[in-house]
Amino acid sequence: MRKLIYHVAITLDYFIAHEDGSIGGFLEEGDHIPDFIASWKNYDTVLMGKQTYEFGYEFGIQPGKPAYPGMKHYIFSKTIPAFEANEWVEIVREDAPAFVRRLKEENGKPIWLCGGGNFAGALLEAELIDELILKVNPVRFGSGIPMFGKSKKQVNLTFLAEKFYESGVFLLTYKVEY
Amino acid sequence: MRKLIYHVAITLDYFIAHEDGSIGGFLEEGDHIPDFIASWKNYDTVLMGKQTYEFGYEFGIQPGKPAYPGMKHYIFSKTIPAFEANEWVEIVREDAPAFVRRLKEENGKPIWLCGGGNFAGALLEAELIDELILKVNPVRFGSGIPMFGKSKKQVNLTFLAEKFYESGVFLLTYKVEY
Repeated sequence: MRKLIYHVAITLDYFIAHEDGSIGGFLEEGDHIPDFIASWKNYDTVLMGKQTYEFGYEFGIQPGKPAYPGMKHYIFSKTIPAFEANEWVEIVREDAPAFVRRLKEENGKPIWLCGGGNFAGALLEAELIDELILKVNPVRFGSGIPMFGKSKKQVNLTFLAEKFYESGVFLLTYKVEY
Repeated sequence: MRKLIYHVAITLDYFIAHEDGSIGGFLEEGDHIPDFIASWKNYDTVLMGKQTYEFGYEFGIQPGKPAYPGMKHYIFSKTIPAFEANEWVEIVREDAPAFVRRLKEENGKPIWLCGGGNFAGALLEAELIDELILKVNPVRFGSGIPMFGKSKKQVNLTFLAEKFYESGVFLLTYKVEY
């Protein structure tokens, strides 16, 4: 059984983006960045919703191309325009929980849940998220897209690890208890 | 100029209580508690709203009596029933920001902002809160009373200090930048 890890940058008040999807205020430079890039090797599979994938277009990702190296990408969307089938990026049109449950039963490295909020909320409601790795940025937005979208599910968390960076970002790892 | 410090227990998702004001899920035992009690000596004044003060009634605090030892208590409420004037506890019926601004100009130790959410939100909007000391509990509520109530004010934070406890609580200190 592979772990599903929600590894994501959040504000201190738990938002992953402003309401319009922009991320001004998150620290894009600093000593937390090399660690984040190094963490990619821990995953062989990455899951994301349509908006999260298309957000990469602003950074030069082409439709159908992978956003992260060496990982199989699953883009969960009933509405994203189809692109040519390829080895690295696949659109999943079926309901996410059933698909992700099967994926976790395969062999392999942990699976990275990249975002966004409502997609992550649906997977939390289905009790499929095993760990949280949170890059907590030193900013309060006051409004925005919550880390789990509209989900109101209560869960206990077991603290596993922490790391502080000179940049002011801190990294927290929790196990999710259902 | 005295600092106003919002020193408060929050969930990982930034709530100070459930929607009904209850706090089941916060850790009431563990190695973070003695540190919290020891921190009281850092303050000579504590500010709170009506609900926060009256919440103490459940723990045996009598109306008009202090909730914390050795501190002057200011209870901000236009509606709380008056109690006999005394040295330790005073009701403030005027608007909080003007009163707190004057209080900060007095000499003394830092002032503890104890809660609750909307009261803290009003003081954040007025740019009167200097520091946050957050006792982050290992739980996600999913809904509840946010740390700053309905305030949507965006602020940057400068990370000052952290401490982790065996209990799973971690303590984060930030300077609020306006």
